[in-house]
Parts: sequence; C-alpha cells; structure tokens
Amino acid sequence: MNDYRPWQTPESPMEEATLCEATATPEWPPPGSPDSVIARAVSPWPIHDVAARLGIEASRLLPFGHDKAKLPHDFTDELAERPQGKLVLVTAITPTPAGEGKTTTTVGLGDGLSRIGQRAAICLREPSLGPCFGMKGGAAGGGRSQVIPMEDINLHFTGDFHAISSAHNLLAAQIDNHLYWGNALDLDPERITWKRTMDMNDRALRQLIVGEGGQGVPRRDGFDITAASEIMAILCLARDLDDLQWRLGEIVVARTRDGAPVRARDLEVQGAMAVLLKQALAPNLVQTLEHTPAFVHGGPFANIAHGCNSVMATRSALALADVVVTEAGFGADLGAEKFFNIKCRQAGLSPSAVVVVATLRALKMHGGIAREALGQPDPEAVRRGAANLARHVANLQGAGVPLVVAINQFDQDSSEEHAVLREACDAMGVEVVLSRHWQEGSAGSEELAERVMALLDGATPEPRLSYADDAGLADKLRAIATQHYGAADIQLEERAQHQLEEYEALGYGHLPVCIAKTPYSFAADPEMGGLAAGHVLPIRELELAAGAGFVVALCGTIMRMPGMPERPASAGMGLDAAGEIEGLS
Amino acid sequence: MNDYRPWQTPESPMEEATLCEATATPEWPPPGSPDSVIARAVSPWPIHDVAARLGIEASRLLPFGHDKAKLPHDFTDELAERPQGKLVLVTAITPTPAGEGKTTTTVGLGDGLSRIGQRAAICLREPSLGPCFGMKGGAAGGGRSQVIPMEDINLHFTGDFHAISSAHNLLAAQIDNHLYWGNALDLDPERITWKRTMDMNDRALRQLIVGEGGQGVPRRDGFDITAASEIMAILCLARDLDDLQWRLGEIVVARTRDGAPVRARDLEVQGAMAVLLKQALAPNLVQTLEHTPAFVHGGPFANIAHGCNSVMATRSALALADVVVTEAGFGADLGAEKFFNIKCRQAGLSPSAVVVVATLRALKMHGGIAREALGQPDPEAVRRGAANLARHVANLQGAGVPLVVAINQFDQDSSEEHAVLREACDAMGVEVVLSRHWQEGSAGSEELAERVMALLDGATPEPRLSYADDAGLADKLRAIATQHYGAADIQLEERAQHQLEEYEALGYGHLPVCIAKTPYSFAADPEMGGLAAGHVLPIRELELAAGAGFVVALCGTIMRMPGMPERPASAGMGLDAAGEIEGLS
Repeated sequence: MNDYRPWQTPESPMEEATLCEATATPEWPPPGSPDSVIARAVSPWPIHDVAARLGIEASRLLPFGHDKAKLPHDFTDELAERPQGKLVLVTAITPTPAGEGKTTTTVGLGDGLSRIGQRAAICLREPSLGPCFGMKGGAAGGGRSQVIPMEDINLHFTGDFHAISSAHNLLAAQIDNHLYWGNALDLDPERITWKRTMDMNDRALRQLIVGEGGQGVPRRDGFDITAASEIMAILCLARDLDDLQWRLGEIVVARTRDGAPVRARDLEVQGAMAVLLKQALAPNLVQTLEHTPAFVHGGPFANIAHGCNSVMATRSALALADVVVTEAGFGADLGAEKFFNIKCRQAGLSPSAVVVVATLRALKMHGGIAREALGQPDPEAVRRGAANLARHVANLQGAGVPLVVAINQFDQDSSEEHAVLREACDAMGVEVVLSRHWQEGSAGSEELAERVMALLDGATPEPRLSYADDAGLADKLRAIATQHYGAADIQLEERAQHQLEEYEALGYGHLPVCIAKTPYSFAADPEMGGLAAGHVLPIRELELAAGAGFVVALCGTIMRMPGMPERPASAGMGLDAAGEIEGLS
Repeated sequence: MNDYRPWQTPESPMEEATLCEATATPEWPPPGSPDSVIARAVSPWPIHDVAARLGIEASRLLPFGHDKAKLPHDFTDELAERPQGKLVLVTAITPTPAGEGKTTTTVGLGDGLSRIGQRAAICLREPSLGPCFGMKGGAAGGGRSQVIPMEDINLHFTGDFHAISSAHNLLAAQIDNHLYWGNALDLDPERITWKRTMDMNDRALRQLIVGEGGQGVPRRDGFDITAASEIMAILCLARDLDDLQWRLGEIVVARTRDGAPVRARDLEVQGAMAVLLKQALAPNLVQTLEHTPAFVHGGPFANIAHGCNSVMATRSALALADVVVTEAGFGADLGAEKFFNIKCRQAGLSPSAVVVVATLRALKMHGGIAREALGQPDPEAVRRGAANLARHVANLQGAGVPLVVAINQFDQDSSEEHAVLREACDAMGVEVVLSRHWQEGSAGSEELAERVMALLDGATPEPRLSYADDAGLADKLRAIATQHYGAADIQLEERAQHQLEEYEALGYGHLPVCIAKTPYSFAADPEMGGLAAGHVLPIRELELAAGAGFVVALCGTIMRMPGMPERPASAGMGLDAAGEIEGLS
C-alpha cells in the first residue's frame, strides 16, 4: 500500500483516456469567484475512478448517479477486518461570523496529502437541508477546497437524512398509535420523551399539541431538526447493521405510569426502523475538486448533537487509505471534545494528529474587533484574540495527541499579524503553518500536509479522555465544563438534577455526556464570547439517549429546532431557463 | 421500431453472456410462495440492459444502484419531441378486502405484450411508506407479476417522496416564518390553507396546534400524508422543469385579512421548492420479474388525490415503447375518472384501450358473501356482484375507448362462476378474458395481451370527458356524482358552498375537480358498498389546488392522513443475522 502514488496510473479499471482528461488542469476562474463557479470548472471523475484510488473495484460500489456511490454492507464488513491507516482530526477555534474554514482545511489537507504522494481520504459530515435553506447555505467547503457534486451533497444526496427522519417518525407514530389503541404498556402520556423530527428550520414546530380534534390522545410534543435526532447519533455510532438494530431497540421513548422506562423494542418497532436505515448506514463516497476520495456520511450538528461523521465511514476510510483526515464540528470545545469522549471512546479510535484551524480575522473578532473593521491590520487584536486559540490548544494538548495550528490564510492578512500569531503559538508550544488551500488547492496546502506527515511519524498514543466511564454523570459534566470551557462549576437546574438521579438509578450512569450548548462562547451565553472563563455552566435539562449511548445536557437557551431569518437563503434559489440550479452554494 | 423483438439480442451494450444468463428461466419456487421469495428467484438485469430494450443508451441513464435509474431531464426533453406509442389503461371494479390485482394485471399485461413481441413498457405509481408500514404492505405487484427491486421500491426508492415532503414543508415553514417576522403580506392566520406533510400513517398529526410556547404565532394546523400533497399532484402533472416551477409559484397558501389569495411566489419560495424537486421530476426506470421496462414514478393515492403516475413517466414511456400499460388507483369510479378528467385533460393523452380488472372473489363479496365463505363456489353471488362490474363498464363505455374485462384468476375459481360472468359480460357488450399472470407470469397473460392488441388495431379515439372546462364547479361535481357514482345529486355543505363561490370569483371555475372519497362504495359511506345508487353525495369541504390545476372536494369522512391498525405491518419487519430484510412484502 505504501508505494501507491495516486498521480501515477493506478492498477484499476480507470481507462488511460479518462485519466488524462481528468487530470488535465482545469481552467480555474479568477480568484474570488463564487464556489459554484469554481466547482463547475472541474469535471468530476467517474466515481469508480475515485474509488480506484483506494483500490476499490467498481463492482463493490453501489452507484448513485455517476459521481456518488455507497459502499455496500458486504464490503464494509470485509473492511472491518483490515489494518487501519492513520487518523488526523481537524478542529478549530471558537467560530465567529468571520469564518474559520474547518471544512475547507479538511479538504485542502486531504488534497495536499494526495499531492505529496499519500494514499489519502477525507471524512466529512453530510449537510442538513435546514441551514442550507435557512441561514448558512451549503456545507461542502469553499474556494479551491470543495467536495463535489456540491448541489447533490447539499440537497438530498443519497437520502440518508430522509431515512433517518422516516425511522424517527415511524417510532413517534407508533407511540401515539399505541396510546390510541388502549395503551397496553401503560405509557404515561405526560412522560413521553420521544419527539418528532424534520430536516428543516421550522420554529413553529418546536412546541405543538398533537392529537387535537379527537384524533388520538392530545399531548404536548415537538419537532427537533434531524441533525439532532438520536437516530442520527445511532447511525453515526453504529459499527454494523446488527449493532444498528440493537441500538434502535434500546432507545428509551417514555416512562410507564409506574416510572419504568419504555423502549422502542417494547413497541416492536426497532426492526422496521432498521429496515428503513439499512441503506443509509452504508458510507457515501464522493470526491474533492482534486479527486481525493471523500467519505461524506452522517451529519449530527456539534452544538446540539455529537458533531462527527459516521464511525462506519471513518473506519472504512481507515481500512482503505493510509491517512484519513476528518473534522469535528464548530470549535474544539464542542466538536473535538465529543470526538474524543464519545466517538473515539465508543469506536476505539485513536487519532494520530490534530490540526487546529484559525484565521487572523476570527482571532481579531475574538480580540474585540467588529466585523466591518476586519480589513484593517491590527496585530494587537490578534494578540488578544490568540487567547481563544491558546485555550483550545491547551485543551487538546490534554488529550496527548500531536498538534499543529493551521492558519487558513486570507489575502488581506498582514505579515505583522502573522508574526504576532507565530509568537503566540511559540508560547503555547505548538507549531503553526500558513495554508492557502482556499486560493490554490493542494498547491497551497503542501506545507501543511508535510507538517502533518511529520507528526504521524511516531507511534499513535492512546488519547487521554476527559473522564472515566465510571465517574458519575455530574462529575462528567463538571469535567467538561471546567477542563474544556474554563468554567468554575456547573449548575444543575432542578429538573436536570432529577433526571440525573433517575438515569443513574436506571443504570445509565456509565454513559458519556453530550453537551448541547452555543458554539459561540465557552459559556452557555453566546454574548459572553470566545474568552469567557470562571463562569458557571447552567444545565437546564438532560435527555437520555440510550441507543446512541450518551446523556445529552441542554445548557442555557440552546434549542434543537432552528428558525429561519427574515429573508431565508431559499429566497434566492431557483431553476434557470436551462433547468440549472441557481443560488445554492 | 416495429420490427424490434425483445427476446432477440437487442442492438445494445448488453453483452451476450449477460443476456444468456439473464434470460435463463429462473427456478420458480412452488406456487403460493410469498412474493418476496418469488422475487428473489429472479436475477434483476442490470438497468442499462433493461433500458436497451427501449433503445436507451446506457450513457443517458442516471443510475441508482445497479437495478434502478432515472431518465435525466436533457433526455426527457428530447423524448418530448418523438412520436408516441399507444396507451392502455388498467382499472378495476370497486375494491374489496378480497383483492382485485390491478397492479399485478398491469405488470402481467406488460410482460404478456413483451412475450408476444411488442416493445412494451408499464407505468406505475410509487408506493408510499404509510401503507407499507401501516396496514397494506408494499405495492409492487405480486406472484409472478411483480416489479423489482421490491424492497427498494417499497422503501426510499430514488427519494422522490422525500423530496416532495421537503418541498411541501419548506413552503409551510416559510409561511410561519413570515408570520413570525411581522407578516408583511398581512396573511390571515385563521385562513392559512397550506398544511404540512409526512410520508407516514400518523393519526396524531391530523390536527395540531403549532407555534406553542412562544415559538411563533400559535394556530391550528395539521399534516396530510405525502401522497395527498398538492406537490405530489404537481410533480405528477408537470410537463417539464419549467412547468414545475411555474406551478409551484401558483400554489395558493392563504388569504390576506382582506381575503386576497396569497401564493407561494409571494413568499419567493417556488424556486427553492423547484430546486428540491428537480431530481424527483425525472422518471424512474426499473423492471418486471420478466425484465419488461417499468416506469414507477409519482404516487398520489386515488381516494384522496388524483391517483395516476406522473405525466413525465407516461409521456417518456410512450416516446420509447410501442405499447404502454398504466394503471389508475382503486376502482374505475375514482382512478379511471380522474385519469380521464384530470390527467388526460391536462396532458393531452388519449388512451387506446381500457382493461377493467375483476376477480370472482371480489364480485362475490359485492354479491353479499363474507370473506370467510369465498372458498365456496357461488355462481349466484357472482351474478349479483357483477352489477358492480356493469356499473364501471358502463361508465367507461361512456368515455368511448375500446374496453376489455380481465378476470384475475384464482385457483379456487369454478367454471360455473366463470360461465355466469361471461354471460353477464355478454349482456354488457364487453369481452372478457381470463388471465393467470399471478400464477404463470407472461405465459398466463398471453391471451389478454392478444386481445388488447386487437383493440389497438383501430384509430385511437379522443376520449369523451365527463364535463367541459367551462361548466361551473357544482356542475362538474354533479356530473361525476351522477354519471360515475349513480348518485341522485350532490349536497354541498355550507362551507363547501362558500368555497365554491370564492374559487369561481377568483377565476378558478375552469379547473377540473378531484373528488376525495372512500374507494369502497359508489357512495361516500363505505358501508353502502359496491352497489350503492340513488344516494346524495355529501361534499363537506373544497380545497383549491391552483398549482396542480384542480379543485379537491372532500366527501363524507374521508381523511388525508391515515392511521395505523393496532398491530401495524411494521411489527413483523426487521433485519436477519445476515442483514437481509424480513417481513416486507
């Protein structure tokens, strides 16, 4: 495997003509062009040619169109037996409206590794339709560091989110159907914890009353966005179909009037849910603009869920590539923390290196500069804002995994600001590399790729997790709050305290915790910003996710169904006269 | 095209080895085996080989796995210019729990036509997840007359239903978002007619209150099943992407406080909806157990919606095949009526022949025999029940299209009963053919195929529709009730009367009507059975579907969100130890 060079003709079904055409340098549009224009400059490789870079035969792929595929279960079962490559985690400073470019850095690093001769793959989450049509737009990278086909990935892709919504809502429907037909299990209608889900930003569905007008048993209910569904977490943490079906049966949906937990398997619905999710559990393969294989699979948000792509995708990629680059959502306090304490803990993964992404612009915002003033060089603001980076670096150093800081460079960045940042990084004891993947693709990320390869030279350490399984739930929450958020303590509201006691009494005290919190501050209040410390973390409510295998803690006002802005992103979208999609990016 | 013989080697990319293997007779399991066991006895052809039977080059397909594909829009645009083959409609008597086999007859006839050398294709609707997990099970035919891959078709297939749900709910979310952000268009929250949708049988969502708990503007709302969504109808009636986007903009979602209609385009959302639906509008291609090309696309129910597969699929099939067999849902009073008065009217289609499917068992039930007693021969019950068939035959004769009755044969059927039925059909002036496609595949439907070909010999007549565009809405409803249902009159409830006047005042009086009514009787009350006549049809409510281009009339207690039985079909489903799906059929 190690003498494989992706830029040479691989031993694969790829025809020479295809290869020549595909590797011809595209005519790139001028810098600063919209992402969709840049993406259209590239002819995607047929997906079997992308797969061939990982030694996958075309017959092992389940195609979706010409440029997307799933790896079927018989193949991923085989992959589970193979030796694993090395895993690199990309995480970031606390996000700001100025952007940090975690996804573009993941893509750029993957392309950079391919460029320097590594058999590389990347793993990303699938975008949600909610932000795509609401506020944020798509989530397939940007500039010269994108995954394609962008439109498909941002829309229905291979249908995974829809399958998750269906499975989630089938369970919900069966609960109300059980009540309607006489409630043989004696569910307490006031203690049904399983809500409904939709992959949409829809504020009006947050809280509702179902079963109105004599149509069943009226009760309070609500919708969460699909990215926050426990089914999403289960799909992302399951090792195989058998594990999937078992976890689905373990979901606790309600309590009886006697207070006993009622599970999905008590309603005999876990099998049908597994049937709905069978195909969705198979990892998706696409490519970057430079044709590096990209697994885009599973999409829990990192603020309201556990924030990493699927274990199935990561493990399959590790069995196929020598180096796999993956990302965890939002800042390292949320994404990387959950990546280690939930995903690595459950799946037995050990990353060999961590890349922390920052931009001078975002650091200046953390240093107190308004977004409008970011065009002006301000080394002192960088110095102040670097305290945010230092916090994340210190947290990650605690995990014991080799670390590098990547500055996602903007053309306006000044060399004085870079110098200040280098100085700050020296003080943290961490290397820093400038990367220009957004402007230049892999040509701009070669140095970052080389530095990461240097970090991979040694033996991979076992990551040091933030708490032991057998710590109490309150101690686990406190460990995250104090170690990762710099908080003085946690404050469990009464409801949360009761729930904590119940979960421990039910035997779920050994589970890890998944904190749902604003990504914009170390505190639960976004206004407290990227330097908050010494605060008390308010935990208003817990939620048992017994199938996913963690306990969710809702902090502050965080909600699991977003709303849309006054003029949503959807307002600018449509089909032009030729039927091409406009306004999606 | 006419000298094409599908059982010869086609001029296609199909390799000889594949063809030999694929055309080898499968080892059929014993008669009476479960549908899933029969389906697994067949190796599906690669979808490009199926497409080759219609002269489609592999490069024109968008593959979904190895045995499903969509026809992309550039290709269907080309097809719109080609000459069209002949269209055969399969419809049925009033359904009973004994089953009639409309879908199996459509499949069997398609295979029979292929067997006798016709370049044939079939067009079916896509199944809904609701009935699949609720009461009915899947909807891909049965016995030796099935479409495959059955599991995929019954589950997420190519994602069309999910895309429809997303587009529908995006519009709903934007309405509540508009209210939240100040309601600049002055929508009357009491007069928002656009509900939400889910592809699920979920009684508790029929009526609900959204926007509770300070999360927006609280108001009464509800979910319909996706098969009843106006978006489903629009997808099934749109001629191309441009027509799709235009129709989406025309949807009327609410009234202002001044009573003026508010359309989707006033909310600037039709473009984003079209983006969500672009891929879903492309017709799906699969195959029968005998590898006849099958277009399975769009799935409105016929009781609560217009009940036919998409115009895109039917027109594409007609451009590719010499004979296309399609079905319309439930009995001819609902399915065929809407097929003529809505689909043919809007799409300019003229069927060349109609097949009316009946079974002796169902006729005996219409003749008053209980389901448990159907095993006993009872020629007199057949004679009584044939009155139901006679009603449908007379209605269809009114359309002026050549007609044949197909008896979907069961092994218990007696020759005395067949003789009685032949006599009854003689009296109706219609030919009758026994068909054994369920037991024998195309070998059992050859005679039916020959008879249908004989009907196609003459020129295709223009169908006589039940009313003119310029008739009033009440006259249109009365025409259907009296001509098709044998009713004495209609009774418009006060609310419906007001709506009718409003729609006509708004300029929508020229639209056809789509009656939502129980399929189990000519009356609105299912208990009145298959021989009801002289009744008054109660119309409780109308609904304007300005994008789909019809006015829905809700009769009796029909609801557009089904519920589940006490023990839903989902309870028997699951994945076995090898990960194979069990219990789905």
